[in-house]
Amino acid sequence: MKSFNDLADFDFEEIGSLLELATRLDQKPEPDALRGKVLSLLFLSPSLRTLASFQAAMLRLGGGSFVISPEMSIHGLETRPGIVMDGAAAEHIREAVPVIASYGDAIGIRAFAERKNLADDLAEKEFHALTSLVDKPWVNMESAVNHPCQSLADWKTMDDLGVPAQGGRFVLSWAYHPKALPLAVPAATVHMAAMRGMDVTVLRPEGFALPEPIMAKAHAAALRSGGTLRETEDRAEAMEGAHVIYAKSWSATSCYGDRMADQDQRAKYHDWCVDEPWFANARPDCRFMHCLPVRRGVVVADRILDGPRSVVIHEARNRMLAQMAVLHRMMGASQ
Amino acid sequence: MKSFNDLADFDFEEIGSLLELATRLDQKPEPDALRGKVLSLLFLSPSLRTLASFQAAMLRLGGGSFVISPEMSIHGLETRPGIVMDGAAAEHIREAVPVIASYGDAIGIRAFAERKNLADDLAEKEFHALTSLVDKPWVNMESAVNHPCQSLADWKTMDDLGVPAQGGRFVLSWAYHPKALPLAVPAATVHMAAMRGMDVTVLRPEGFALPEPIMAKAHAAALRSGGTLRETEDRAEAMEGAHVIYAKSWSATSCYGDRMADQDQRAKYHDWCVDEPWFANARPDCRFMHCLPVRRGVVVADRILDGPRSVVIHEARNRMLAQMAVLHRMMGASQ
Amino acid sequence: MKSFNDLADFDFEEIGSLLELATRLDQKPEPDALRGKVLSLLFLSPSLRTLASFQAAMLRLGGGSFVISPEMSIHGLETRPGIVMDGAAAEHIREAVPVIASYGDAIGIRAFAERKNLADDLAEKEFHALTSLVDKPWVNMESAVNHPCQSLADWKTMDDLGVPAQGGRFVLSWAYHPKALPLAVPAATVHMAAMRGMDVTVLRPEGFALPEPIMAKAHAAALRSGGTLRETEDRAEAMEGAHVIYAKSWSATSCYGDRMADQDQRAKYHDWCVDEPWFANARPDCRFMHCLPVRRGVVVADRILDGPRSVVIHEARNRMLAQMAVLHRMMGASQ
Repeated sequence: MKSFNDLADFDFEEIGSLLELATRLDQKPEPDALRGKVLSLLFLSPSLRTLASFQAAMLRLGGGSFVISPEMSIHGLETRPGIVMDGAAAEHIREAVPVIASYGDAIGIRAFAERKNLADDLAEKEFHALTSLVDKPWVNMESAVNHPCQSLADWKTMDDLGVPAQGGRFVLSWAYHPKALPLAVPAATVHMAAMRGMDVTVLRPEGFALPEPIMAKAHAAALRSGGTLRETEDRAEAMEGAHVIYAKSWSATSCYGDRMADQDQRAKYHDWCVDEPWFANARPDCRFMHCLPVRRGVVVADRILDGPRSVVIHEARNRMLAQMAVLHRMMGASQ
Repeated sequence: MKSFNDLADFDFEEIGSLLELATRLDQKPEPDALRGKVLSLLFLSPSLRTLASFQAAMLRLGGGSFVISPEMSIHGLETRPGIVMDGAAAEHIREAVPVIASYGDAIGIRAFAERKNLADDLAEKEFHALTSLVDKPWVNMESAVNHPCQSLADWKTMDDLGVPAQGGRFVLSWAYHPKALPLAVPAATVHMAAMRGMDVTVLRPEGFALPEPIMAKAHAAALRSGGTLRETEDRAEAMEGAHVIYAKSWSATSCYGDRMADQDQRAKYHDWCVDEPWFANARPDCRFMHCLPVRRGVVVADRILDGPRSVVIHEARNRMLAQMAVLHRMMGASQ
Repeated sequence: MKSFNDLADFDFEEIGSLLELATRLDQKPEPDALRGKVLSLLFLSPSLRTLASFQAAMLRLGGGSFVISPEMSIHGLETRPGIVMDGAAAEHIREAVPVIASYGDAIGIRAFAERKNLADDLAEKEFHALTSLVDKPWVNMESAVNHPCQSLADWKTMDDLGVPAQGGRFVLSWAYHPKALPLAVPAATVHMAAMRGMDVTVLRPEGFALPEPIMAKAHAAALRSGGTLRETEDRAEAMEGAHVIYAKSWSATSCYGDRMADQDQRAKYHDWCVDEPWFANARPDCRFMHCLPVRRGVVVADRILDGPRSVVIHEARNRMLAQMAVLHRMMGASQ
């Protein structure tokens, strides 16, 4: 595997094979699989779960990793091409990325959306600028509009719990959050559920529709898999017979990059906090999913998160297992 | 071993067996003992020795660890139950702790005392809130009123140096320090020395008596072990025939949590800086112990720290060995 | 190998043997060579390449490392002898260094020049204060006037690329930079090239001559190796027939430690930015070397850094390989 950037780069069978490997590595550890192998971890954006789960994944396979993170990148990294570097930044990504990559057998990179220009972010302009500098296998640890490791873990979680693929009803719901958050998780999630063959509903208020190219990509995935995709702001309609509600806040796409306008827009929707009444016409065993971190009492009520519907810890642990499969394919005997 | 939280959870023979294992692992390395095993290290309070010695301990046993520390916990962790998280904190310990624990085979947790309410700290209220979220073996890397890894290392240090258990005279002395420090080390130390069967004296000025429950626990340990326990503010009386003086500053318990009152209280005791005259009627080979970090010229004179009495580096190295034994029992073949 | 502090501590054959080992470890990995071994990494100055390459080097040899860096040294480390520590610093290097060293089988230390007093820095006063506290094998990860790991990597890079030793023409050129930078890299580099037997020219403007003891040491190395050494401010003369230009900015030695005077001094030399015209009378295949990080458009033009002359990524990767050889000699079977 040369890169793990997007579930759309793989077919349904390939995803299935990765998930089988993840399960096998959980049940039958392979502490020698990546002996002497090194994963470079480059975080240009902050992290907790991804930071921890990638390090743990390498260790369990007998390899190791090192971390370069924004707090420690003391030089400041310049990203603009052709610039005269007479300011604060003492190093350019054109040197930093190839060097960091050269110390590893593979590299994971995280860089959130700049959220200045929607078209640039949808085109993954910054992330491509980074990965184009790498000549090793690489993993997308979250880019402007993708988070394939999260999606692979989420897919595995639904498999683990017996949530049906064909005929499974999946609701991706916007939720209130005090800040404008990136599109990476909702974009990756809607595509993942569609690719899995599920009947997918995007539930979101006025002004928070996902950008058209994200929806188009998910539509295409649904067409291939036999799934369906629709969007609505009607909660009851969306939740009808749902197997899963996946909550996530994201930026107002109607005023992308305009923080003040976004604040105004979202201020009306404090009531978009997932709580038991939302589940009135869902399946009785409807699950609650979230990528974490999650704000209690804001995105979701405590009683949901602490109750039997929540599978968020299971999801988070699957991050490690999914990544073990990816790293095994990239650097191990199964590559 | 399910948890390593308090020396009081073990009997004398169990401690002896752990210390034997620590010595054996020092003399006969076992670089495959924890192959493929992962220790999660969660620091909610800062660290240097604990951070380094736990990482080194895992590496020497062939495993590895990852660190989540306050500097990098970019989300800010909320600890209060039932709170609406619309402030700075983006993640609650109810998610963070189980997730971080799920990536490891065991977890170490450090969280210093809040020092708002003495009863809460003595009850380890915050620490229990954290460890109750963990379903893996766990290690107390310093809590409000305990530091079992330090105590195990200190016990080993006295064994290494031939300091007698029965009949050994151990002085735990308060020392001046510009800041009000936690009770964890003195609480753990007084109990450890009493459990070891020593004749223990707590030497401290007016206003700095250790809280009654801490003394009561140490008294109980002394009763079982055949040791004794007393407290005094008379230096000469305390040091009479001493084998060991263990210096440590701690908060004024008479005005716990009141920083200004504590400052007033301690300002009188600048002369509580351990120096050669203190040893006038001690045993000629009386040792100086301290958990580090230590302020030179404030807590102890340079000539003591740099002279033959000091065993502080030996103590600090024993942290690693003691922890290797604990981790071996938790995750290795000896578990 | 007891320490790796200075290429001058080794003879030509010993360097050759280290470089052979580096190449062999690249071609034939030894993922068990340092099984269960620990490298302590103590950074008192910031780092990216050194931080990453040392961690990766240990992992590739089957060992591991832990990092203590300024961002995390929460206590603040006091370095002055005999001080009463009643200020911010809670720990003295006299405790911190031996303790950190005691957790590893070897230790790497980085501490940049203080740049208050040139004689102190030339004598490595601070660095010796640190290393004198260590009773384990240790590596200089950059001190006031040395950077032996960089030099070993640079030597390897020239070997890899077929740059001749005897008769090879090596130009160490000062370059403009907005800040006064340390002398460590230029001092190490001029000595390395002289020791390799090359014809070395130091090209620098008025006021930026390297201190006499640095030049004298390089002269002595040239005498032994059959190389030559000269200095000039005439670019065309320096570059005549050059095989390599090694660019690096450094402090004005005429006003060492005086930041304002240094600014005035360097302000005149904005045009010391390496660009294609510099190479007019060099060998057509003249290489561009730099230790990184490098400021684009300030120290060197983009077209040089992005063109075929640049070998900076190759150099940076060789850091890891050179260090693997050193660590193998210190802790492995080849020691």
